[in-house]
Amino acid sequence: MSKGRTRAVSEERASEHDRLSTSDVGAPPGRSSGGSRRRTEPRKGVDVPLLVEQAREGRPRAVARLISLVEGASPQLREVMAALAPLTGGAYVVGLTGSPGVGKSTCTSALVTAYRKAGRRVGVLAVDPSSPFSGGALLGDRVRMSEHASDPGVYIRSMATRGHLGGLAWAAPQAIRVLDAAGCDVILVETVGVGQSEVEIAAQADTSVVLLAPGMGDGIQAAKAGILEIGDVYVVNKADRDGADATARELNHMLGLGESRAPGDWRPPIVKTVAARGEGIDEVVEALDKHRAWMEERDVLATRRTTRAAREIETIALTTLRARITTPGPAHDLPALAQRVTQGTLDPYTAADTLVAALTTD
Amino acid sequence: MSKGRTRAVSEERASEHDRLSTSDVGAPPGRSSGGSRRRTEPRKGVDVPLLVEQAREGRPRAVARLISLVEGASPQLREVMAALAPLTGGAYVVGLTGSPGVGKSTCTSALVTAYRKAGRRVGVLAVDPSSPFSGGALLGDRVRMSEHASDPGVYIRSMATRGHLGGLAWAAPQAIRVLDAAGCDVILVETVGVGQSEVEIAAQADTSVVLLAPGMGDGIQAAKAGILEIGDVYVVNKADRDGADATARELNHMLGLGESRAPGDWRPPIVKTVAARGEGIDEVVEALDKHRAWMEERDVLATRRTTRAAREIETIALTTLRARITTPGPAHDLPALAQRVTQGTLDPYTAADTLVAALTTD
Repeated sequence: MSKGRTRAVSEERASEHDRLSTSDVGAPPGRSSGGSRRRTEPRKGVDVPLLVEQAREGRPRAVARLISLVEGASPQLREVMAALAPLTGGAYVVGLTGSPGVGKSTCTSALVTAYRKAGRRVGVLAVDPSSPFSGGALLGDRVRMSEHASDPGVYIRSMATRGHLGGLAWAAPQAIRVLDAAGCDVILVETVGVGQSEVEIAAQADTSVVLLAPGMGDGIQAAKAGILEIGDVYVVNKADRDGADATARELNHMLGLGESRAPGDWRPPIVKTVAARGEGIDEVVEALDKHRAWMEERDVLATRRTTRAAREIETIALTTLRARITTPGPAHDLPALAQRVTQGTLDPYTAADTLVAALTTD
Repeated sequence: MSKGRTRAVSEERASEHDRLSTSDVGAPPGRSSGGSRRRTEPRKGVDVPLLVEQAREGRPRAVARLISLVEGASPQLREVMAALAPLTGGAYVVGLTGSPGVGKSTCTSALVTAYRKAGRRVGVLAVDPSSPFSGGALLGDRVRMSEHASDPGVYIRSMATRGHLGGLAWAAPQAIRVLDAAGCDVILVETVGVGQSEVEIAAQADTSVVLLAPGMGDGIQAAKAGILEIGDVYVVNKADRDGADATARELNHMLGLGESRAPGDWRPPIVKTVAARGEGIDEVVEALDKHRAWMEERDVLATRRTTRAAREIETIALTTLRARITTPGPAHDLPALAQRVTQGTLDPYTAADTLVAALTTD
C-alpha cells in the first residue's frame, strides 16, 4: 500500500527530513508503543511500532530513521528487530566488493537501473568501515547514485560503522533487515575499500560479486585481499580498457575455472562490463539470477541465510556478554584481575575463568 | 644461569631444532608435568614445567616451542600461562608500526643493535596478520634481521596469526609473555602492514613508535591508517631523502605539537633517522627511555599494562564463551535459532537472549 508516496532517500535527505519534520515520526507525545520494552525509555525515544508500520508502507523517512537506530546502536534496537522479524525474508541480498578504483559504485548504480527497469524495488547499502581512530573516508557514490535520488523505488543509504559495537558484522545485517522489511526486492551491499570485515560482509550475502578492472597485477591484488575465494560472480569492469581480456584470463586461471568440476557445482562466471555505459550489466543481472536459481534448487540459499543469521545472533550475544564481564560485579572485577595479572600473581586464563564463572553467580 | 648457552632463534632455526631434537624438549616419555592440568593430555603434549624452566634459562628452542604453543592455540596454553605468570613483568614492550616501505624492519634491526651494545637482552616479535582467506605474506625482515641470528642475547620470532582463535589481540600479548619470561629486557613488536588489529597491538605496547618516510602524502596516509593518534615517539626514517624535513614539519603540524600543552603532558618527539646506516638510532633509544621514565613517574606505565592485561583476559573469556554458546546444548541450539530467525518467527535479539541464558542453565 501507498508505495506511490515513497521516494528515494539519501542520508542527507533523511537528515533533512528528520530535522524538518521529526514530529510525525519521532517521539510523538502521548503515544505509547506497547509494553514490551525491557529498558527505560530514552529521552528521545521513537514510537517503534509506528515507525515500523511507516517503513513497511515504504516511507523513506521511516526507513532512514530505523537505519539510524541501527547505526547508533540504539537501546530500542531490540524492539525494532522484534517488530521487523515477521516482515523480513523477501529481499535478495547481493554483496559487491573489490579494490578501490574498480568501479564498484558505478556498477552498483548500473545494477539499480537494470533492476528498476524490471520493476523491482532496490535497496543500496554502502558500507564504509572508517578507521576506528581517524574516521571518515567520504563516499564518492553519492554523486554516482544521484540519478536514482528521485526514484521512489530505490533506497540508498551509506552507513558509517565507525565505533559501532560489534562492528560491521552486526550493523550490516541489521540494516539489511530494515531494507528487507521496507519491501526491497533486491538489496545491493557495496563495501567501500577492502579489509577483513568487508570481505566478511560480502561473503555473507546471498550472492557475492567480486569486481576487478584491467591493470598490472590486479588479480594478484585481489588474491592478496582475500576476495578471490568468495565470488559467486566475477565482473571485469572497465572492459574497454587495454588488458581486460588478460585480466579475465588471469582470473580464469587463478580461479581454476578451466578445471573440471563435479556435475551440479557452481562455476563462477566472469562477466565483462563497462558499467559507466551500462554495457554488460544485463549479463551481470542474468548471472545473479542464475546463481540464485542454482542456490534455491539445492537449498544452498537457506543454508547461507541461516549461517548469516547465526553469525548475527552470536555477535549480539557476545556483545551482551562482553558488557557483563567488563562491568565489575560482586564476584568479578576486570581491572582488579588485570592488575594481578600485571603483577604476576595471576595468569590470564585463571582471570578469564573468574569472569566466565561470574556470569552464573553475579 | 646458563645464558651463555643461548643463541638467537629464528622461526626456521626453531623448526629445525624441533625436528632434529624433539626428544629433549617435547613429550619425553615417562615424564610427568604435575597434576594441575584440566584437560586431557594431548597425544603430542609437551612437558610444560620443563619447557618453562628451559625458557627461563634462555634456551632458544624452549622459547620457540612455547611461542608455537601460543600460535597453535594449544590446549596446554592454560598451563603454560600459569607457569609463566610469576616470571613476567620485567620486559619493556615497544611497538613499531607504519605503512609498508617506511623501513620498520630496518629500524627494528638497528634498535636491536643499539640495545645489544648496551648489554640488554632483546626479543623481536614480527606480527604478520595474513589475510584470513588467502594467507601468507612473506616477511622480508628475516633477511634484515640475519645479522642478529648468531647473537645469544636476541630472540627473533615472526608470528603468523592467521586463523588464530581470538586473533592478534590474543596471540601477541601471550607471545610477549613468553619472551618476557625468557628474560628479555626489551621486546620490540613490529607489525607488518597497517590495519585495525596492528594499530591495536601497537597501541597496547608500553611505548608506541610510529614510523614514516618522506614522500608525497605520507602524512595523510598515516592519518588515514589511524596511526597518528597512537604514537608516543615518531620516527621519520630515510631522512637522507628529499622531503624529510617537510614530512617532519607536516607531522609536527598534524600532531599539533606546536600547540601548548599542560605541564607534565607528554609531547611526542619526532626523530629523524637513516636506519640503514644506524643514524639517529641512539636518539630513538633516548626518546624511548625518556618516555618510559615519564610513564613510570606518573604511574601511566602500570595503567597501560593493566589495560593490556584486561584486554587479554577479556579476549580469552569471550573466546571461551563463544565456544560455549555456539556448541549446541540442552537449552540452546544456534543453528536452530538461526533458522527461526531466517524464517521470521524469531528476532535476533531474542535468539541471542536464549544463548546467553543457556550459559547459566546448560
